[in-house]
Amino acid sequence: MREFALIDLLTASLPTHGSVVVGAGDDCAVLDLGLADRWVLFKTDAVVEGVHFTAATEPRRIGHKALARCASDLAAMGGLPTVALVTVGLPIGFAPTDVQEVYAGLNALARRLGVGIAGGETSASPDGLWLSVALLGTVAKDRCVLRSGGRPGDALFVTGTLGGSRRGKHLDFEPRVVEGRWLAERFPLHAMIDLSDGLAGDLRHVLKASGVGAELDANAIPISEAARATASGPSPEEAALRAALTDGEDFELLFSLATEDVEPLLTAWPTKFPHLSLSHVGVLTHEPGLRLRDDRGVRPLELDGYAHFQ
Amino acid sequence: MREFALIDLLTASLPTHGSVVVGAGDDCAVLDLGLADRWVLFKTDAVVEGVHFTAATEPRRIGHKALARCASDLAAMGGLPTVALVTVGLPIGFAPTDVQEVYAGLNALARRLGVGIAGGETSASPDGLWLSVALLGTVAKDRCVLRSGGRPGDALFVTGTLGGSRRGKHLDFEPRVVEGRWLAERFPLHAMIDLSDGLAGDLRHVLKASGVGAELDANAIPISEAARATASGPSPEEAALRAALTDGEDFELLFSLATEDVEPLLTAWPTKFPHLSLSHVGVLTHEPGLRLRDDRGVRPLELDGYAHFQ
Repeated sequence: MREFALIDLLTASLPTHGSVVVGAGDDCAVLDLGLADRWVLFKTDAVVEGVHFTAATEPRRIGHKALARCASDLAAMGGLPTVALVTVGLPIGFAPTDVQEVYAGLNALARRLGVGIAGGETSASPDGLWLSVALLGTVAKDRCVLRSGGRPGDALFVTGTLGGSRRGKHLDFEPRVVEGRWLAERFPLHAMIDLSDGLAGDLRHVLKASGVGAELDANAIPISEAARATASGPSPEEAALRAALTDGEDFELLFSLATEDVEPLLTAWPTKFPHLSLSHVGVLTHEPGLRLRDDRGVRPLELDGYAHFQ
Repeated sequence: MREFALIDLLTASLPTHGSVVVGAGDDCAVLDLGLADRWVLFKTDAVVEGVHFTAATEPRRIGHKALARCASDLAAMGGLPTVALVTVGLPIGFAPTDVQEVYAGLNALARRLGVGIAGGETSASPDGLWLSVALLGTVAKDRCVLRSGGRPGDALFVTGTLGGSRRGKHLDFEPRVVEGRWLAERFPLHAMIDLSDGLAGDLRHVLKASGVGAELDANAIPISEAARATASGPSPEEAALRAALTDGEDFELLFSLATEDVEPLLTAWPTKFPHLSLSHVGVLTHEPGLRLRDDRGVRPLELDGYAHFQ
């Protein structure tokens, strides 16, 4: 059974609670704990040796990645992360100095984000190292951006450049927390998600949640230097595009908003974020499905995201 | 380096956040998110194949234990658990029906506790199965019980019976959520903790946090049937007592309160909880350290908790 089919099955029958505004199926859980104007965001994620890093990865980067992944999910809702707990599975004989380095990476990112680490647990792990991070944050109720709000006609944007993350970005990326909050506070975003499964894969999550289709503009997809550097085969250009569409762990933001907001966004962005590109990569459509437009015309995009290639 | 020394080192330099009322070092993190009369409790914990269960453990019991451990920590602060997220590390080839059974165990306990499961993550795990649970809850600000409030002269109580948990209770225990809330709401408890490292080990955590000592009454320690059944050696009675003092994963509540509240507690308890014993096991003292009184007199208790025997 594929991962997403299993998740659909499991999430169909989960117990509910009155405080849950949005449960399984979006970037974070959204909770109404009784605060007047804010919701609480709640997210957990894990990094596992042999899956998200290797035995040779520097411990500091492992700690960084563990927290950054959760922070990226809060960013994708326009949220402000506040407090994390960290659970560590430690292999027998894992050096205490390496544990300290894992925490040094965690702590450095936490300090940059203004996040407190309020404890956690350590467990023995019979095999490799793993870290599970639980992160809380808040978002103004009228500024929380879900996957499900996309509307036909919306313009689709992505931050940064895509593909080739396994060359190093997957360990060192900065979660787009400042960018996500700025976008959500300044513009009426309709839908947003962070790119962990690849543009094609994550866009499909938005399309499913929003009940719309999309058309991507091949010439507008921002292909990273890393994706170009690793592209090979008879058509390196096509391989690089494919990497940008399907490689996982870009951790950029993909969002949609009404066309009337495109011009103000494109004017304000470069002043606020001069070192991060913003690309208008396509449009949401009434017609279901995902299509790619290039110089040869428009065709269905069969490529899936990262998870399906595993 | 022993586990607790490493934890002390790591927690000495964690980033902080203004909302953290109590951080690392108690059963849960306590957060002030701006609610008028309640604090938010936040806890994560994990169960790992080969550490907390085996490859032969029924999946349903694994799911139960994963949530029950976190709920037990909230119970130990007098808290009400509300919403959980579940992160699962799935070995290659782990049967989807077994994953469903893990969730059946989680969901059944969640429903009994009134907890919603608002999503989570699945990851591949190159080796064994593991689950990490993050649990939120609430507690009235004036009813939150910490480890640090114990005072000399306090009476010490434990719920249930102790020792021999690995015979099965460690997989099937019911977290004392109802009992913890009732105690915290009805009586001015000074300190409370749940027993995961054994009575001797967890009592030491309370003594350290509260800056007091304690004397336990050997004849009052409630030894479980499981501890008696497994006790062997030249003195089975002493082996059973040792198991009750040091075996891990009892998940009963240990708490202290002023002597004037002992009589009302002992009167009210059996009416409210006729099927769960409550034992007055000792007293907190000005004199530091942990001592055991038995028919031969009083002597220092050198036994540590579960973690130190690993």
